[in-house]
Amino acid sequence: MSERTFSVIGKRIPATDGPPKVTGTALYADDLRLPGMLYGKILRSPHPHARILRIDTSKAERLPGVMGVVTGKDAPARYGILPIGHDETAFCLDKVRYVGDEIAAVCAISEQIAEEALDLIEVEYEVLPAFLTPEEAMACEDPNLWIHADRKRNIEKEYHHHFGDVERGFREAIESGGAVRFDRFFQPRVTHAPMEPHACVAHWEHDGRVTLWTSTQTPHYVHRTLAEVLGIPMSSIRVIKPFVGGGFGGKSETFTHEIAACLLSKRTGRPVKFTFTREEVFYAHRGRPEQYMELKTGVTKDGRITAVEAKVIQDGGAYCSYGVVTILYAGALLAAIYDIPNIKYDGYRVLTNKPACGPMRGHGTVGIRFAFESQLDMLAEEIGMDPAELRLKNCLRPNTFTVNSLRVTSYGYDECLRRVIEASDWKNKRGKLPFGRGVGIGGSHYVSGAANSIIRSKMPHSNVSIKIDYDGGVTVYTGAAEIGQGTETIHAQIVAEELGVALDRVRVIAADTAITPVDLGSYSSRVTFMAGNAAREAARDIKRQLFRVAAELLGESPDRLVARDEKIFPQDEPQRAISYQEALMAAIEQGGTLIGKGAYTPPPEAQGGNFRGAGVGPGVAYSYSAQVAEVTVDPETGQFTVDKIWVAHDCGRAINVLNVEGQVEGSVWMGLGQAVAEEQIFEKGLTMNPGLLEYKTASAVDSPPIETIIVETIDPEGPFGAKEAGEGSLAATIPAVANAIYDAVGVRIRDLPITPEKILKALAEKRRRDKDANGHGEKPTA
Amino acid sequence: MSERTFSVIGKRIPATDGPPKVTGTALYADDLRLPGMLYGKILRSPHPHARILRIDTSKAERLPGVMGVVTGKDAPARYGILPIGHDETAFCLDKVRYVGDEIAAVCAISEQIAEEALDLIEVEYEVLPAFLTPEEAMACEDPNLWIHADRKRNIEKEYHHHFGDVERGFREAIESGGAVRFDRFFQPRVTHAPMEPHACVAHWEHDGRVTLWTSTQTPHYVHRTLAEVLGIPMSSIRVIKPFVGGGFGGKSETFTHEIAACLLSKRTGRPVKFTFTREEVFYAHRGRPEQYMELKTGVTKDGRITAVEAKVIQDGGAYCSYGVVTILYAGALLAAIYDIPNIKYDGYRVLTNKPACGPMRGHGTVGIRFAFESQLDMLAEEIGMDPAELRLKNCLRPNTFTVNSLRVTSYGYDECLRRVIEASDWKNKRGKLPFGRGVGIGGSHYVSGAANSIIRSKMPHSNVSIKIDYDGGVTVYTGAAEIGQGTETIHAQIVAEELGVALDRVRVIAADTAITPVDLGSYSSRVTFMAGNAAREAARDIKRQLFRVAAELLGESPDRLVARDEKIFPQDEPQRAISYQEALMAAIEQGGTLIGKGAYTPPPEAQGGNFRGAGVGPGVAYSYSAQVAEVTVDPETGQFTVDKIWVAHDCGRAINVLNVEGQVEGSVWMGLGQAVAEEQIFEKGLTMNPGLLEYKTASAVDSPPIETIIVETIDPEGPFGAKEAGEGSLAATIPAVANAIYDAVGVRIRDLPITPEKILKALAEKRRRDKDANGHGEKPTA
Repeated sequence: MSERTFSVIGKRIPATDGPPKVTGTALYADDLRLPGMLYGKILRSPHPHARILRIDTSKAERLPGVMGVVTGKDAPARYGILPIGHDETAFCLDKVRYVGDEIAAVCAISEQIAEEALDLIEVEYEVLPAFLTPEEAMACEDPNLWIHADRKRNIEKEYHHHFGDVERGFREAIESGGAVRFDRFFQPRVTHAPMEPHACVAHWEHDGRVTLWTSTQTPHYVHRTLAEVLGIPMSSIRVIKPFVGGGFGGKSETFTHEIAACLLSKRTGRPVKFTFTREEVFYAHRGRPEQYMELKTGVTKDGRITAVEAKVIQDGGAYCSYGVVTILYAGALLAAIYDIPNIKYDGYRVLTNKPACGPMRGHGTVGIRFAFESQLDMLAEEIGMDPAELRLKNCLRPNTFTVNSLRVTSYGYDECLRRVIEASDWKNKRGKLPFGRGVGIGGSHYVSGAANSIIRSKMPHSNVSIKIDYDGGVTVYTGAAEIGQGTETIHAQIVAEELGVALDRVRVIAADTAITPVDLGSYSSRVTFMAGNAAREAARDIKRQLFRVAAELLGESPDRLVARDEKIFPQDEPQRAISYQEALMAAIEQGGTLIGKGAYTPPPEAQGGNFRGAGVGPGVAYSYSAQVAEVTVDPETGQFTVDKIWVAHDCGRAINVLNVEGQVEGSVWMGLGQAVAEEQIFEKGLTMNPGLLEYKTASAVDSPPIETIIVETIDPEGPFGAKEAGEGSLAATIPAVANAIYDAVGVRIRDLPITPEKILKALAEKRRRDKDANGHGEKPTA
Repeated sequence: MSERTFSVIGKRIPATDGPPKVTGTALYADDLRLPGMLYGKILRSPHPHARILRIDTSKAERLPGVMGVVTGKDAPARYGILPIGHDETAFCLDKVRYVGDEIAAVCAISEQIAEEALDLIEVEYEVLPAFLTPEEAMACEDPNLWIHADRKRNIEKEYHHHFGDVERGFREAIESGGAVRFDRFFQPRVTHAPMEPHACVAHWEHDGRVTLWTSTQTPHYVHRTLAEVLGIPMSSIRVIKPFVGGGFGGKSETFTHEIAACLLSKRTGRPVKFTFTREEVFYAHRGRPEQYMELKTGVTKDGRITAVEAKVIQDGGAYCSYGVVTILYAGALLAAIYDIPNIKYDGYRVLTNKPACGPMRGHGTVGIRFAFESQLDMLAEEIGMDPAELRLKNCLRPNTFTVNSLRVTSYGYDECLRRVIEASDWKNKRGKLPFGRGVGIGGSHYVSGAANSIIRSKMPHSNVSIKIDYDGGVTVYTGAAEIGQGTETIHAQIVAEELGVALDRVRVIAADTAITPVDLGSYSSRVTFMAGNAAREAARDIKRQLFRVAAELLGESPDRLVARDEKIFPQDEPQRAISYQEALMAAIEQGGTLIGKGAYTPPPEAQGGNFRGAGVGPGVAYSYSAQVAEVTVDPETGQFTVDKIWVAHDCGRAINVLNVEGQVEGSVWMGLGQAVAEEQIFEKGLTMNPGLLEYKTASAVDSPPIETIIVETIDPEGPFGAKEAGEGSLAATIPAVANAIYDAVGVRIRDLPITPEKILKALAEKRRRDKDANGHGEKPTA
């Protein structure tokens, strides 16, 4: 099917879930009301690290209006999102591990009474020394104090990989007259801050089955974990995702309140609701870890990267979550954007007594891209090359296996670079704007889904089925979770295009584990690629059934038929068309309701790669993004503004142009928040800014104009050539801004976020250094 | 599969929807609350027949809190459940046709305000003469006065059929020394009186799609009709049936409040709810018509029925509804229980200015069975034969085509008769109990679904699909409507049995037109037979997929495999079994989520029959029921009690014994209500007893012990041999009681209900007649 012939794909289609959201009729988990519903609240630890000596809930249970109390002993099974990270229980059993850790839950006839009851639960603690930095944590040799007894010196996971020979690479760079730099960078802990706090309602019915409506990105993983923790078969559990007001990675696993709602509903026989306060969202966290980065990179005189040596230490907080993936991705994916012949990686995921970190938009890639793209600019300066040019010189080629065996299929990074260079008028601006103004460039990439799942099985990662009755309505059943990223609209477009029917015939039924087939969830930018492929396959299954009948009616071979504009006709003979409805009716008369199905399993060749670990392999395909930021810095105050961002994103194929733009701009905007403002602050383990007044995300008025350029590489495996669009652009924004600030005022900020204070301080240092007539940049230490 | 090997079929399985119903967690339509929901009320006609000259809703619209008003002009499309009976509009356009006919609807922020607003709607009428009996209606020659202009002399439909030669039959009876009788009988108008009044909530969303939650037996027909009346595609409409608190035929078509809710939701942009008052349920009605019956029947001296001539006039009320089927069934089905070689039928469905009648449990067969079974007893007496014996002499045989080409497959009426004769100790009781006590026998039958649908297509009448993911849960999607008859449990049993898995793995998702495949609905006792067959076929489709993989694993041929007890093994080699879960996982790894589908279309040979009409053919199979009632009558007061009822019902196969008993006992109990108490009373067109205090249904304390005997004839086409169980027993109860009263005190009541007053009056007449030394029974007039 050539691009020209698309009816629905590649258009600007408003999100099908938009109207209910903007008119207020959308029902989120907290909007659900069931008869007799109770309200739950969670008692949380006031200590970052302490042994629990005694819990007495008796006074709380006697408070009038309290209907049930549960503690750790009610659900002692260990669980975790990754097979190797089963370090959580619904409530703390022996120890609390961060301020906010869950100790007990209460349900009552009102939220107020439930809150009051929390105060009546008596907990006796033995306070333990708290580990608040990775350094402290890794220094501890006393097994009695380790946060998890089985995690030696509080190291959750370390990776040590070496591909090629970095020493040879560095030598080559030096010998060519190029440069080798060693730099340190820091990324603070940031969080997703979705509009909707976590919320759920559980109803444990008299037949022993429980239904959980929950704001989640991964209904299927919640389904699995609940079975594990509740000790009942998966078939007795139904997880339904209502409208979700944003996730960004923060709702990708099972949380205590979801288990607690089920337990309390079982105990009381009544539905139980939990809705987090904003403060609790910060305790649930699972955001980006503090990340300490050391990077050593060599380039030849003519700008070829010869070797990269990276060391990353992540402060992952008190539990594993997806942490072993975060630390894996930070190293493994370095190789999938630039052609790096020699690469060495040492990664440490460290446990500390802070809320657990997890996956966040751009998972694993964001900090390291800030570091790497900053260092690239420094290297460019050292060898006297335009940093955009340096990037163009090191592009991969399509259909490559990287040094660490990542499979890159389509590859549009070079085109992305060229497009933003052109659009931003880079060549006339970079180094040429007046002091205080500058442009910077950055690049990023992201997986289109992980090639391996956390489930130890060869089963497909996405399944989609379709039903069509004679009403002509097309029901698409998908387990994929719409969390605002537009997946339901994408499903509808893919199916409508493949069947050649109007978009408004299609109705997507999603994310209800009883009704919709398994899809692993909305994470790792996998949905359009994987569920999209499954949806297309399901539509093809239906189309085969329609064509079989249509072929009889037309006296044609089915493989000559085309479905388009609600008609089916022999290729190039639209005048002989029969209507979709006619073919449908005939097919139904023959065999009843049409049912089609499709599934998607990543190909084995994408599952390889020497950077495997944690059951989660590298990506099935990679998106690419290049950005140019233009900034204005006031050197007197350090105040700065990002004036404009140009972003080119290679999404393979833009199935929905409007949606790709929205995703890309959302990513840029979120990256910008991290670049210039966001940072979680702790004091003795206590989150000091657990609210949206204190934790500053960028608001709409902070957003510069964003010019989005879509680059289409038509991936050979993506549905209609599509790949990732929802995360990959985030990581490039931060170095683009950092590099632009350097271009504007000649200072380089290595610790995020970039603030006026840091700029002022750096300017003062720079003045001192300039006075001492030193060159800039640290010399390599090794 | 032999009966001995069943795991789930043929057991006593509690209804899966029982617990939520008895614990109050079941959500019926009136329990639904949506944000911003409004409340609707309907303005109804105070006149039985009048022209509408003017409707002014302006004052109502101005009442604070009123959000919308709609009248006939907002939805003028004509509709009706049968293609030939399109005589309804959402609201009256030109005329009102009964007291209670719908004129306008209002929605407001509270029910009270909506009620008040109704009083502010001004309607100017020109009152017309009202036709309150079929006699008056049929006598009218003035087309200007006809209730519907296109229905000449107010006759909705007449049938005149003659098969064989009844005159020859009557001659044969007389010549043999047998008897011919002519008798008149009367059945009053009775209604379903379900516990739950009609209720619905509509939500017309911003994308132009509307969802209607409604208490209905036929979501699919409502779906069709809404598209017609609202003028939008079916694919834009979603009809969802929540829990339904009884239908019994009274919720088998689209009602004004359902359309009004959609229209008002569209107008206001808010969800709108309607819940009928009990009085309104009586206006909605669609129950059994008054029925005037003349029967002439001949039997030979040795008890063989030679001919039947029947004339039936039904007072159908103001609209057609299913009326043409009711009047068809009254004649056509006479031939499907006894072997009647010559039969003549004249049926008249007449329009009157009363609420429209429609289908009610035992649809079309109840009145005529009362008449025929009463007359059989009279004939038995005339030829000096035991009435049970007379019945046994006239049984059909299995696999017969009747004189009017009805196809009878399995036939257990003779066995039913023998079983109740034996169980009730009939031979020692009939004619032998002391004066004032007696036993009576009666027989009945019913279709297991209509062989033709109201939809002009060869498409299947039922479709079922199944999804199984690796959680092992079995989701069954069915359009069939659970209305308390146990269909969801039956679906689950059939699928569990076929797949050989535990019943609690199965979850039935039903009656949501967006999610579940088309099923025509719960009427004509079609669901177990048709949806059951489709469910079994869907399970077989899944089983084929599992067996294909299991065969590979076992190194066996798939056709040697058996699924049972959660295992799959080669026939007779259970020790070689692999588990269901293992086969499932392997199948999913090969092809993803398992999806199966099944459909059921009645065979062409069942769709024939010379008694066709109205697009609804005769039954696909027939159930049979025989009953003996024992009564005690106080001859001084006429007061009587039904002391016990023995009922034997041929349901083909009892898939769920508990459920069959419940259905049979419910039918008997409902028949009893009609036998001894129920009657709608009108005065000048006004329903005089529109409430459950005035309209007397039998209560639990009125129910005699009922001894239920299940007869299994294993129908060749029913799923596992099953056929009808939910309606057929009703009709036999009434003549059994009437015949028992005759046996007790020698008087015969020909007008239902049988009341003490009628008995007293008949006893007085009998004494007078006995004094005059006359025999009993009327002599034939022709």
